[in-house]
Amino acid sequence: MKKMTERVKQILSGYAGENPGVLTNLARLLDHGTLAGTGKLVILPVDQGVEHGPARSFASNPAAYDPDYLFELAVEAGCNAYAAPLGFLEGGAAGHAGEVPLILKLNNSNSLYESADPISVQTGSVGDALRLGCVGIGYTIYPGSALAGQMYEQLRELTEEAKSVGLVVVVWSYPRGSQLSKEGETAIDVVAYAAQLAAQLGANVIKVKLPSAHLEQDAARKVYQREKIPIETLADRVRHVVQSAFDGKRIVIFSGGGKISDEALLEQIRAIRDGGGFGSIIGRNSFQRPRAQAVKLLRAIMDVYKG
Amino acid sequence: MKKMTERVKQILSGYAGENPGVLTNLARLLDHGTLAGTGKLVILPVDQGVEHGPARSFASNPAAYDPDYLFELAVEAGCNAYAAPLGFLEGGAAGHAGEVPLILKLNNSNSLYESADPISVQTGSVGDALRLGCVGIGYTIYPGSALAGQMYEQLRELTEEAKSVGLVVVVWSYPRGSQLSKEGETAIDVVAYAAQLAAQLGANVIKVKLPSAHLEQDAARKVYQREKIPIETLADRVRHVVQSAFDGKRIVIFSGGGKISDEALLEQIRAIRDGGGFGSIIGRNSFQRPRAQAVKLLRAIMDVYKG
Amino acid sequence: MKKMTERVKQILSGYAGENPGVLTNLARLLDHGTLAGTGKLVILPVDQGVEHGPARSFASNPAAYDPDYLFELAVEAGCNAYAAPLGFLEGGAAGHAGEVPLILKLNNSNSLYESADPISVQTGSVGDALRLGCVGIGYTIYPGSALAGQMYEQLRELTEEAKSVGLVVVVWSYPRGSQLSKEGETAIDVVAYAAQLAAQLGANVIKVKLPSAHLEQDAARKVYQREKIPIETLADRVRHVVQSAFDGKRIVIFSGGGKISDEALLEQIRAIRDGGGFGSIIGRNSFQRPRAQAVKLLRAIMDVYKG
Amino acid sequence: MKKMTERVKQILSGYAGENPGVLTNLARLLDHGTLAGTGKLVILPVDQGVEHGPARSFASNPAAYDPDYLFELAVEAGCNAYAAPLGFLEGGAAGHAGEVPLILKLNNSNSLYESADPISVQTGSVGDALRLGCVGIGYTIYPGSALAGQMYEQLRELTEEAKSVGLVVVVWSYPRGSQLSKEGETAIDVVAYAAQLAAQLGANVIKVKLPSAHLEQDAARKVYQREKIPIETLADRVRHVVQSAFDGKRIVIFSGGGKISDEALLEQIRAIRDGGGFGSIIGRNSFQRPRAQAVKLLRAIMDVYKG
Amino acid sequence: MKKMTERVKQILSGYAGENPGVLTNLARLLDHGTLAGTGKLVILPVDQGVEHGPARSFASNPAAYDPDYLFELAVEAGCNAYAAPLGFLEGGAAGHAGEVPLILKLNNSNSLYESADPISVQTGSVGDALRLGCVGIGYTIYPGSALAGQMYEQLRELTEEAKSVGLVVVVWSYPRGSQLSKEGETAIDVVAYAAQLAAQLGANVIKVKLPSAHLEQDAARKVYQREKIPIETLADRVRHVVQSAFDGKRIVIFSGGGKISDEALLEQIRAIRDGGGFGSIIGRNSFQRPRAQAVKLLRAIMDVYKG
Repeated sequence: MKKMTERVKQILSGYAGENPGVLTNLARLLDHGTLAGTGKLVILPVDQGVEHGPARSFASNPAAYDPDYLFELAVEAGCNAYAAPLGFLEGGAAGHAGEVPLILKLNNSNSLYESADPISVQTGSVGDALRLGCVGIGYTIYPGSALAGQMYEQLRELTEEAKSVGLVVVVWSYPRGSQLSKEGETAIDVVAYAAQLAAQLGANVIKVKLPSAHLEQDAARKVYQREKIPIETLADRVRHVVQSAFDGKRIVIFSGGGKISDEALLEQIRAIRDGGGFGSIIGRNSFQRPRAQAVKLLRAIMDVYKG
Repeated sequence: MKKMTERVKQILSGYAGENPGVLTNLARLLDHGTLAGTGKLVILPVDQGVEHGPARSFASNPAAYDPDYLFELAVEAGCNAYAAPLGFLEGGAAGHAGEVPLILKLNNSNSLYESADPISVQTGSVGDALRLGCVGIGYTIYPGSALAGQMYEQLRELTEEAKSVGLVVVVWSYPRGSQLSKEGETAIDVVAYAAQLAAQLGANVIKVKLPSAHLEQDAARKVYQREKIPIETLADRVRHVVQSAFDGKRIVIFSGGGKISDEALLEQIRAIRDGGGFGSIIGRNSFQRPRAQAVKLLRAIMDVYKG
Repeated sequence: MKKMTERVKQILSGYAGENPGVLTNLARLLDHGTLAGTGKLVILPVDQGVEHGPARSFASNPAAYDPDYLFELAVEAGCNAYAAPLGFLEGGAAGHAGEVPLILKLNNSNSLYESADPISVQTGSVGDALRLGCVGIGYTIYPGSALAGQMYEQLRELTEEAKSVGLVVVVWSYPRGSQLSKEGETAIDVVAYAAQLAAQLGANVIKVKLPSAHLEQDAARKVYQREKIPIETLADRVRHVVQSAFDGKRIVIFSGGGKISDEALLEQIRAIRDGGGFGSIIGRNSFQRPRAQAVKLLRAIMDVYKG
Repeated sequence: MKKMTERVKQILSGYAGENPGVLTNLARLLDHGTLAGTGKLVILPVDQGVEHGPARSFASNPAAYDPDYLFELAVEAGCNAYAAPLGFLEGGAAGHAGEVPLILKLNNSNSLYESADPISVQTGSVGDALRLGCVGIGYTIYPGSALAGQMYEQLRELTEEAKSVGLVVVVWSYPRGSQLSKEGETAIDVVAYAAQLAAQLGANVIKVKLPSAHLEQDAARKVYQREKIPIETLADRVRHVVQSAFDGKRIVIFSGGGKISDEALLEQIRAIRDGGGFGSIIGRNSFQRPRAQAVKLLRAIMDVYKG
Repeated sequence: MKKMTERVKQILSGYAGENPGVLTNLARLLDHGTLAGTGKLVILPVDQGVEHGPARSFASNPAAYDPDYLFELAVEAGCNAYAAPLGFLEGGAAGHAGEVPLILKLNNSNSLYESADPISVQTGSVGDALRLGCVGIGYTIYPGSALAGQMYEQLRELTEEAKSVGLVVVVWSYPRGSQLSKEGETAIDVVAYAAQLAAQLGANVIKVKLPSAHLEQDAARKVYQREKIPIETLADRVRHVVQSAFDGKRIVIFSGGGKISDEALLEQIRAIRDGGGFGSIIGRNSFQRPRAQAVKLLRAIMDVYKG
């Protein structure tokens, strides 16, 4: 590992409360792949097999049924990391040891049973992450679910354990629950709140969805209007979310969502960059298309962030 | 133990993420009995005493009330392994030590209380499996049950413990629950999903039911039609399920179901073979008939797989 | 301890899967009291104080309020063992140390709160059984209760712990729950199922109620009729229950139930003997009558079993 | 500590099943204060601050807001012990070390949320009792509550832990729940049942309310009538409750209840004495009146017991 | 650390039951900042980011999005301590090590899901408090919630653990639940009860809301009227609450609540002082205004307490 860039050092300074083990793995994340040293990240996540089932996830590009393919894609595209559930990492971690930083996704949902107040179930452990050579763990919370408390407590325990062995904690913070409207799940006030919650829970890296200009909660709407918080453009909203995560001192990355056109996606990437976002997590828009196309798109995204 | 065949080595290469203890017990499974070295498996499972009660399970062949009988049947027929709950293994493991690889079924259901969202209860431990000389543990999940999360978390803990002491993890993945239709329990999209879930949860060997051509979930149906996934013949469907378990890198075996005619059963076996399935688990079609007939049928099945 | 009889050795051979500690305590049970060496058992159980309250249990023979009395009764009558909850054993175990094998009943119910789906609560531990000098633990399950799974899991943990320290596991298997009719609780199909469940859960000794000729479950009724399983006489039904517990390789004993006439009780005992049952557990018919009468009746019962 | 009296030795002989640590602390309880050596006990309990709130508990005698006051009251009046929750014992245990045996009340209820099926919550530990120099722990069960099972299991665990470190276990057994009438909470059959349950759960000292002549349960009523159990006078009922706790081999004490006239209270004390009760626990009738009056009353009570 | 003042020694004498580690950290709290040695405390708490979301908490003074800002504010204003959840303390504890005593708030609620019977979720641990250099832990209970028992048990465990490693326990005791009216949450009887509960649970420092003259519970109202407890003025009520916390032997501080005018706030502070309260916890009235104004107000508050 080479000397860290000034930008990486600056980012790490926001994590001075962590032990050197966590700092080292954060540095590994920030210093790998095409974006190494820039302070930006593009991560390949593949948990759709669990979330949506195999055919919906992989049939459009059947190579992706194979765990080895996904490691190869992350490596070839120069991603900062590859994040997946236990089975997929077990399937390739030995054969691709050291090729790309790994994040073990410790909990997952599936769509064979669905509930208005969802909970995500633990399917891996900190011990699994260590034996598979990962730099960090990933965990999803659903702020707004009646069962969110169970996830917060489990995340708290896993975070304490993970940090104690030097692993980075990446939190997927996805508002969802019976007291939120569908539109509210991506409302700017709610997404900013989700980022704040993850940061307060001790997350090192926070992943949220791109926020809309909708305002969900009455008490919040009054404040946004009174304080004239700018939320018109996507870049404005990204900036507000990043501010909501300790004034930019926590790494916040944004998810790409479902398959959209390349240009629409790159437009989003530019807004993330302009708003001071730290990067993207690109799943369905990469592994659901043929390898060459996927690599090309991921590189185009990285070009925006480097730009 | 002799040198492994090329086919067994190839299968084991998909498990490079496991420790040598797990690989050794996987090799024991694949290198035992009539099908040793072929990469195919026929396993004798006997948990019907718990699931359906003694008379429904054993009255048609009363010899099977006796735990010793079932060990003898598995040995005589040349099965790769015998899988049963705690009591049945305790009843014969000492007297038949070393004669056949054993799988301790760690959870079970019974039919004295039934619920639309079932859960299977833990009735044995990893420690029990070790003291009884087993090569692996077995565990049932019911994807689609409202209580599935409890089973996933328990399986996760047992899997971590089992693998850490070198035991193979065999998962029975049987979709069932209040949001699934009866027909949906064996729908091709749902069975493929069940196989994917088991693989992602870290299963080394996956057991599913033979899938029908029915498509249960709307979101999945669109994909099967758009991508023209072949599901007309049973062999097609077996092939899709095997692909859904990490592109054939996980051992997937199929259950025989209730008593059917020998010819119908062998027809299924041929489809499993033609679709690239790894073998069968044959319970009621073996222990519910007289010993000689059972052995004859099991050998006929093995002949198909060897063929 | 003297050399075991051939019958005792034969019974123990069915438990070859257990460690020498468990075998030793099983031998102690089978080699104590009037029936020592015969392979038959008569056990004195006194948990009615908890189950029904003190007056209903002891007012008809007030001597039985005193914990010492019950030890004395078991010793004088020559019972194989005395089984009771924590308080009663603590009350006499020191003063009667070594006089009679003890079984600590680890869970209990009471009738101050009742539910259609009952659960029995843990009130003692394996550690308690050891410090009180017991040969085994007792545990009640209610197959058919919506909460049965909690009892199975607790029994599983206690069984693993008990056997690891050489204690015998005695399971009271009493079907009860919202999906069973009152008549169904003692139906032959259900009692046989209860015996099978206990055996599969690892019980060394199984206690069930005497079965009636009623058939509760439709799926079972068809099999009993098709296979012409004899269930007309009580001896037939006892034979079927014993067969259902691993073809006679598990010790199955039967409860006496409420107070009935001596002759009616002895008639039942003869049926148990003729059906191959291993013995009886006689509570209310012994401690609820004056000492001399109780001893006389218990000896008459033992005479039947010796006969 | 001086040589024990014959009466104390006789009482201790009923506890021969306990280890010397528990016997020593029982002896300390029985050999302290005005009633030392008589086999009778008067204990000062102060958990009303938690149960009813501070003003309802202490406003009539504001000195009692102060934790030190309550120690002083117990010492001055010559009580056998002082029982209170964590905060009150922490408030005075150092300053009054060794002055009076202490019982840490390990669970408590409050009246800010009430339910037909109550549960009492753990608010202290065995470790707390040890570090505060206590001779025992106190624990409340509500037999008859739908949640009673949770309290029995928690009591079981705490009892095992407490006895293993030599602490005495005092159980407050207060029937309460949705299947009991208000009158039934103090019905003689129910109070006797409550005493039996506590004894079977391993309690060393049992505290119940004074029973009325009401009979709550149908099945019990028949037995009381058939067996002609005397329950007309309070002394009769006390005698029956004491008999129900292992024929007088467990220490049973009675609560004074709400504030009543001194004469009425002393009348109750005489009945407890005449019925063979072991003593009283006097809370609201002592700390809710001025110190001098309280001491005078407590001494009058002790005089009755000594008489 | 210098020699303690007489007032501090007097306060510490009420905590003689605690170990020297806890006493040391209590002394650190009482001997820091502008009010050092006076026996009064002003603490800066910032958990509103979790409770109300980032914009509602910080948009009016955006500097407060930054964790470092809040440390600087506490230091500059001369607060006795700064209390916050995990993320905010991790964000500044290294950079501001030793500058101000820290209290890690171990549980938190948020407003994305709300319930009539709320529960606060654990989001930090005693281990976290130690690694971050804190003097104590903070924990919120909601007396009156149907789920309060879960919080009491968790607080009990955390308190035992925290004190065993010398950490001070600060309890936020906020009545809330389906059996309390909105007005009742700050009723004098209920707030006094809440203070008593926290004290009995072992809290070293108790934080309650300022009580109104409303009386919520019928049983309490009778006592307040009969005993003529003075509750007309705020100072009266503060005095009663302090009395309810062990007659002034527990440190009780009061929260400032939402943003109000400076004069109104100072009026409250004078009442707290006159009633014998130990100080204030000032959140929204400090961090939601510009730094200079906030420091000025906090100093004015401290002047009242010093006065």
